[in-house]
Amino acid sequence: MTFTVFTGGDSGAWSILSVAPVIGESLMAASHLAIAPSLSLGDTSATTPWQLRGVASHARYVERAEKIALTSVQAGLGRNEATRAALIPIRKSAAWWEMTQDERRAIFEDKSHHIAASLKYLPAIARQLYHCRDIGEPFDFLTWFEYAPEHATMFEDLVGVLRATEEWTYVEREVDIRLARAI
Amino acid sequence: MTFTVFTGGDSGAWSILSVAPVIGESLMAASHLAIAPSLSLGDTSATTPWQLRGVASHARYVERAEKIALTSVQAGLGRNEATRAALIPIRKSAAWWEMTQDERRAIFEDKSHHIAASLKYLPAIARQLYHCRDIGEPFDFLTWFEYAPEHATMFEDLVGVLRATEEWTYVEREVDIRLARAI
Repeated sequence: MTFTVFTGGDSGAWSILSVAPVIGESLMAASHLAIAPSLSLGDTSATTPWQLRGVASHARYVERAEKIALTSVQAGLGRNEATRAALIPIRKSAAWWEMTQDERRAIFEDKSHHIAASLKYLPAIARQLYHCRDIGEPFDFLTWFEYAPEHATMFEDLVGVLRATEEWTYVEREVDIRLARAI
Repeated sequence: MTFTVFTGGDSGAWSILSVAPVIGESLMAASHLAIAPSLSLGDTSATTPWQLRGVASHARYVERAEKIALTSVQAGLGRNEATRAALIPIRKSAAWWEMTQDERRAIFEDKSHHIAASLKYLPAIARQLYHCRDIGEPFDFLTWFEYAPEHATMFEDLVGVLRATEEWTYVEREVDIRLARAI
């Protein structure tokens, strides 16, 4: 089991361009983001503005046909040309988590077309979802996106589409952190 | 977020009657089990034979109609007459986790009738599921069962039914710990 730790501070491979609250409380400003794997969940360091931890776990809603479609078009992280990134931590409401699996899936895909809408933006925008609800973190998910500067408008489209869905009405905290590769 | 910590050692509210491996490696013998909430995931204590941590998280497969059925008949933990208990940690195989949500649900309920079969044993047998796959634990789930001594045979039926399912073929480690209330 490997945790991924995102540390906002004064060093790291990514320069932070902006930290903007979308809904709810924001995170403190920091100049850089460091991303590192960790084999354990130690205490959050008090010496950096913030640290967010997540697990690249199994998918919770994707069905087989969708997984085949996603796998056939998605790009991996770390492409040379993908010098822009976004880290978007999200927490959903109690109402979301009190729903049953079939109800969450219905809102996620049948009504909000989360997967189908995202497919349009692949492979230009690579992304990785990290789960953190069950490890005692302040957010439920961290999504990491990487893209080339020429796809920045496409990325704005994608986040706009996702924030206009019924699924998004269950988001009670979201911070939008934009980054550029520093090294 | 509260974690539940199950500590096998020489003190606790439950006496351990047996620790038996069902498949894979067992756990060390201990005389007592202590159960306590914890607000953080500190390091596992080295002074006890073992410590297992889990999160009483949201259900992953249950649909609304099933939740209504379960809620209408299930009993809570801590009933006076429920002086017997079982703690059953389980780890499922990589093949299970590589499946998509629809595939896991099909094996869990459509083929293995996990929820429907369990309903028969309620409210005599109370149970609580704790998730631990995403917090770096050696198991994926801990299930805690409580029942009165006169329902011991019914409990053996229940575990027998669950171990005969297709779902169970994905279990690669299971330990069966039986207990009696000590205080």
